[in-house]
Amino acid sequence: MSGFVGYLQQCQQRINLELTQRLHNQHPRLERLYDAMRYSVTMGGKRVRPLLAYASCEALGGSAEQADTAAAAVELIHAYSLIHDDLPAMDDDDLRRGQPTCHRAYDEATAILAGDGLQALAFDWLAQESRYAAETRLEMIRTLAGAAGPQGMVGGQAIDLAAVGHKLDLATLEDMHLHKTGALISAAVQLGALASQYATDDQLQTLRRYARAIGLAFQVQDDILDVQSDTATLGKQQGADIARDKPTYPALLGLEQAQSLALHLRDEALAAIECFGPDAARLRELADYIVQRRF
Amino acid sequence: MSGFVGYLQQCQQRINLELTQRLHNQHPRLERLYDAMRYSVTMGGKRVRPLLAYASCEALGGSAEQADTAAAAVELIHAYSLIHDDLPAMDDDDLRRGQPTCHRAYDEATAILAGDGLQALAFDWLAQESRYAAETRLEMIRTLAGAAGPQGMVGGQAIDLAAVGHKLDLATLEDMHLHKTGALISAAVQLGALASQYATDDQLQTLRRYARAIGLAFQVQDDILDVQSDTATLGKQQGADIARDKPTYPALLGLEQAQSLALHLRDEALAAIECFGPDAARLRELADYIVQRRF
Repeated sequence: MSGFVGYLQQCQQRINLELTQRLHNQHPRLERLYDAMRYSVTMGGKRVRPLLAYASCEALGGSAEQADTAAAAVELIHAYSLIHDDLPAMDDDDLRRGQPTCHRAYDEATAILAGDGLQALAFDWLAQESRYAAETRLEMIRTLAGAAGPQGMVGGQAIDLAAVGHKLDLATLEDMHLHKTGALISAAVQLGALASQYATDDQLQTLRRYARAIGLAFQVQDDILDVQSDTATLGKQQGADIARDKPTYPALLGLEQAQSLALHLRDEALAAIECFGPDAARLRELADYIVQRRF
Repeated sequence: MSGFVGYLQQCQQRINLELTQRLHNQHPRLERLYDAMRYSVTMGGKRVRPLLAYASCEALGGSAEQADTAAAAVELIHAYSLIHDDLPAMDDDDLRRGQPTCHRAYDEATAILAGDGLQALAFDWLAQESRYAAETRLEMIRTLAGAAGPQGMVGGQAIDLAAVGHKLDLATLEDMHLHKTGALISAAVQLGALASQYATDDQLQTLRRYARAIGLAFQVQDDILDVQSDTATLGKQQGADIARDKPTYPALLGLEQAQSLALHLRDEALAAIECFGPDAARLRELADYIVQRRF
């Protein structure tokens, strides 16, 4: 696993560089907006989605260079969604990864605009990436827009907000997470594969099955960590979900059952990509990492 | 001009149908989100941007059918920007076109998400429109994302917010409007032209000059109407800009000078497209309409 930790760090450095280099501005009156966008995009985080994009590209024989723009575009969407989720009208969070959330560090209007701007940039960067064939870029944009939009992440957030204070059954909880986090995780895997330029429809289909399982596993583990970790490790308020009466897997299944579900989903993900060769090693390690992480 | 009024109504009906037909949802838990998106997109409005897209497509020999998706995508971006601009943390408006703003009719979280969702859909619809060649779609997405993002509309809104309560000179006011409304108006004209599939680089350049002038003219006229009209005609609070101490053209130039500036910009727009033939009649009429409208 030590080789994997090195790989994680390498990918994280890579995407951090990619994002900061590209978020430059020359208009003096836009400095605050760009500061807020850079602040949110570079405030750390595990970079799970870029990691998945890199690993997926690699699994199909592509290089990290090829996956850079795909990974960056997915991370822009993720970063924008965190800014908007943290807003007072949404989850009203003051802390994110141990630092003030965007609307706390700047102001609410700037945070709304920073999120809006990052979403536009994600599609802009993909549309401009001449490294990918035109049809590939369009497929990436369709995939990412679908995953980000009302039938994906935004829809998931709407389902989530409507669910606060309500009892959900397991199927509804799963449906919410498939929208809220699963769609974008799946997009990361697909965009990475498309970036390799070698992805067949069958391979994309296989990767979607893998992504569906690790996306859910990621969420189950998130819920488990919300119960188990302390605030310092988590970088956000421990027990925040329970305090808000948000439905969680441990609340619905009990902690032990939730833990077996996470492992079961990990195995499902591994089974999906069994047909892939040694190039998929990082995707396999990522599936392990997602259910073993402690923050 | 009576033929032009008929054309306006025809285009408005066309875009209303296009937008409502496409904003459909089959997920029971997403009804509220889709309601909010439909509410905001169909609450009326002059549809200036779709009109420009249709007229621009026609000016280059294209049909209305060809311009539908381009017009709809631009209008989605416009609709999303109005939802977010009206939020309490931004302009804090209760009325838009005489009706409750989205966050008033629904709630703030739903309004944020509806705006976010509409932005994603705009790029989704363009990426999926097989009527346009792949390269054309990418050019449209680049143009629209650039116009919507931090170097365009979102940047303009940031400049605007920073300007409240400050004295701006004419150059800065113009810079703000070129970002805030000009960029998207220009995108509407360019996307319409690209939709015709016949646009040359020279023609696109010419149309950008036209769009820059009518975009500013539109804003100058907006500021004039804010001073002149009553609340019922305007559908929003009359004098709202002045009450908020927002910089406006009449405040900076006086009413008469602002009126001549609007006409001067109209003439500049007409001069830019002088080389275009009779197919550009609607673009010419639109330039007149923009400075003659009363709401």
